[in-house]
Amino acid sequence: MTVGMDKADIGVTGLATMGRNLARNFAHHGHVVAVHNRTESRTTRFMEEHHDEGAFLPAGTIEEFVASLQRPRKAIIMVKAGAPTDAVIEELAAVMEPGDMIIDGGNAHYLDTRRREAALRERGIHFVGTGISGGEEGALNGPSIMPGGDAEAYETLGPLLEDIAAKVDGVPCCVHVGPDGAGHFVKMVHNGIEYADMQLIAESYDLLRQALGLTPKELSDVFREWNRGDLESYLIEITAEVLGHTDPATGKPFVDVVQDQAEQKGTGRWTVQSALDLGVPVTGIAEAVFARALSGHPEQRAAARSLTGPSGTAGDSGLVEDVRRALYASKIVAYAQGFDQMAAASAEYGWNLNLGAMATIWRGGCIIRARFLDRIRAAYDADPNLPTLLVDPTFAQALDEAQESWRRVVATAATIGVPTPGFSSALAYYDGLRRDRLPAALLQGLRDFFGAHTYRRVDREGSFHTDWSADRAERPA
Amino acid sequence: MTVGMDKADIGVTGLATMGRNLARNFAHHGHVVAVHNRTESRTTRFMEEHHDEGAFLPAGTIEEFVASLQRPRKAIIMVKAGAPTDAVIEELAAVMEPGDMIIDGGNAHYLDTRRREAALRERGIHFVGTGISGGEEGALNGPSIMPGGDAEAYETLGPLLEDIAAKVDGVPCCVHVGPDGAGHFVKMVHNGIEYADMQLIAESYDLLRQALGLTPKELSDVFREWNRGDLESYLIEITAEVLGHTDPATGKPFVDVVQDQAEQKGTGRWTVQSALDLGVPVTGIAEAVFARALSGHPEQRAAARSLTGPSGTAGDSGLVEDVRRALYASKIVAYAQGFDQMAAASAEYGWNLNLGAMATIWRGGCIIRARFLDRIRAAYDADPNLPTLLVDPTFAQALDEAQESWRRVVATAATIGVPTPGFSSALAYYDGLRRDRLPAALLQGLRDFFGAHTYRRVDREGSFHTDWSADRAERPA
Repeated sequence: MTVGMDKADIGVTGLATMGRNLARNFAHHGHVVAVHNRTESRTTRFMEEHHDEGAFLPAGTIEEFVASLQRPRKAIIMVKAGAPTDAVIEELAAVMEPGDMIIDGGNAHYLDTRRREAALRERGIHFVGTGISGGEEGALNGPSIMPGGDAEAYETLGPLLEDIAAKVDGVPCCVHVGPDGAGHFVKMVHNGIEYADMQLIAESYDLLRQALGLTPKELSDVFREWNRGDLESYLIEITAEVLGHTDPATGKPFVDVVQDQAEQKGTGRWTVQSALDLGVPVTGIAEAVFARALSGHPEQRAAARSLTGPSGTAGDSGLVEDVRRALYASKIVAYAQGFDQMAAASAEYGWNLNLGAMATIWRGGCIIRARFLDRIRAAYDADPNLPTLLVDPTFAQALDEAQESWRRVVATAATIGVPTPGFSSALAYYDGLRRDRLPAALLQGLRDFFGAHTYRRVDREGSFHTDWSADRAERPA
Repeated sequence: MTVGMDKADIGVTGLATMGRNLARNFAHHGHVVAVHNRTESRTTRFMEEHHDEGAFLPAGTIEEFVASLQRPRKAIIMVKAGAPTDAVIEELAAVMEPGDMIIDGGNAHYLDTRRREAALRERGIHFVGTGISGGEEGALNGPSIMPGGDAEAYETLGPLLEDIAAKVDGVPCCVHVGPDGAGHFVKMVHNGIEYADMQLIAESYDLLRQALGLTPKELSDVFREWNRGDLESYLIEITAEVLGHTDPATGKPFVDVVQDQAEQKGTGRWTVQSALDLGVPVTGIAEAVFARALSGHPEQRAAARSLTGPSGTAGDSGLVEDVRRALYASKIVAYAQGFDQMAAASAEYGWNLNLGAMATIWRGGCIIRARFLDRIRAAYDADPNLPTLLVDPTFAQALDEAQESWRRVVATAATIGVPTPGFSSALAYYDGLRRDRLPAALLQGLRDFFGAHTYRRVDREGSFHTDWSADRAERPA
């Protein structure tokens, strides 16, 4: 198949699973694809296994790889984030020409992407930090793609990416996200939301199992049923699959033979760290990241098993529907927080993000794909300046309908001793945001008392300090 | 007083409130103190106001300042963190000699301190990043002091710092914390814990006011009463003062005329960001930082006021004692998490921190000073390798006694719609840590399903992957 072809439409360097599948995806869509890997044997193996799937141009060196690309050249890097990415960028840039494009499809930190984009722009090369979600299967059959970089690059690159992206209702799950690091930022928040989503699912499973004594098989049926309603989503669907699976070796429920220490890569943590800098409370994502961290301290957990608590059950089968509603309400909160974070970053970096479009491209291909995203898109279509998703009429009504259940779930979990940090922090956020007066006023008073940090008043402009150690007179500060 | 003196024992550059009061504190203890400020008029004013309080050597330039110090020279920098600190360090180092010491008493990020310490060590100068807590009043009359840097510097510097530190039972609230950035790290965690402590106090006040309709004056009495028991601490004491204060201008409770948007400097945020890197769940600090962030979004809060919820009360006066116990239990959790973070950093950076000593030096001078710290010291005295403070017999018993109340408080708050993210996240942490099996096993199953991230088993060594899309056979990964 490689005979007689002149130049490739696009190239992929880094032929581990994700890179391999992306290259195949492009080829399946009729594009000529240059392929390269630092260790050439991997390129050879790739060609052996996949040469009959489409038009590939294998390259032994970076120079050959770049030379095989049509101008403006488009080279996708699929290597490890960090130093390996910097190394490959440098090799490519050294042989590329102004107008060419380097696309980083890995999970880079968006601040690294900003740095790289600025440096390559100086050299006339477009750098397109691109979030790609969907795992191996998505890379092969249609991922959700979040490219950043400049609009000029997207003009010629975009059609290629949209070609291989997942489609929902005929609309590709790919859009030009915004300048420099915007694509990787949005991918990061996507992953953060994924953490929160999974934590809420885990709490639902755990609470129902503890409270009602349901088996994993029975809970699999519960999640399958839930997947027919508001919660319809890939994660709910595969939860039903995982809970329904029996371990072939022991005949036990699969979930009971898996070690209960959740691992994490960096993106959930990065999301929370960025939110702290931006001043956006992403409590749902933070509790999810910390719940994984807690699970990963076996020595502490072993010691703490002696701590006392109820091991009671709560016998009401109405709890199933209550948990379903609590899950939906908490999920709305987690997404609202994530979208707030994107809005804050957009303002901070001048990205001009279209939040509704972000919901659109997450509808398919990625891990958090869900019917729910259509509702978020509709909310931002109706009001692009929505101050928070919670006040969109559809979501406000859903929260109103869910809240009695939500409150019962948090109260029940606290009473019977099952940890539900995701549910309870989401409810606290909801109750905090809607409060007329928060006890933050007391915090400001304390800060003025011990540190002369001053406070503002509700009835007058300006900053004030009370002389707490003397006559307690108030003075403008 | 300055006539006839030869050289100063120590110098302070940067004569804003904190620097001024530290210089006076040294002088009050009989030390000769060199004073310097970039803008000389401030030095002149300092001498006019304080010359009769002790022996000061005013210096007009950095060169004069350094020349006026006894060898090995000890210069404390009290200027803004960041670039101003770097600038003053450079000026000092340029005229100092090997063996001299630069002490940074500001709130620097510990990673900056590590960088500066390494750079100055190359030049033979000791750099001592030093946390100082206690605000203006503490700086003048006895702060809690957390010096890092090398042990050699502490040998001559330590006695001076211990002299001016707060004393509890005759023991100075100052100890050599550990190498390089250890002092600033410990100060950062101190501040993070302070955030959590204050948030729990704010939730206690808010819940009792909402649930029982108590007035700020009545709540002032509640906190005054609490200050006689387990909760005895500076923050509880001043909470009673602030709640009891009447605004002179309006005759209303002071807490009702203060704007309810809590501000923050950087250290709370830094603590959570560092904990995320270290993999330590500091949920109490995170919820406190995020609660402040939430309060500071007036436009969102205004929009969210239309969201529905109960505005019910809960009429049982037993709630006061329940809240007291919930506050104590949640406080134990917050401190346990902060001490875990110090332990993790100690391992990460090879600091060999003595956690009991950290509790000791926080007993006086600083914002979180409390009777409670003695109990923490005792816990680490009894077992320096305690896996978590929660399992110290005294604390485990306190948690056991508190937990029914704690659970009622979280359930009540959820039911009546008052946000208590601090109480509920602490309870979730407690219930999570003591659990035999966590739903993290389900998370691992989901991660393996969508991303082939593999999992470990409870019954065999190794990593495994299930082929979810085909025959669901399990293979070693």
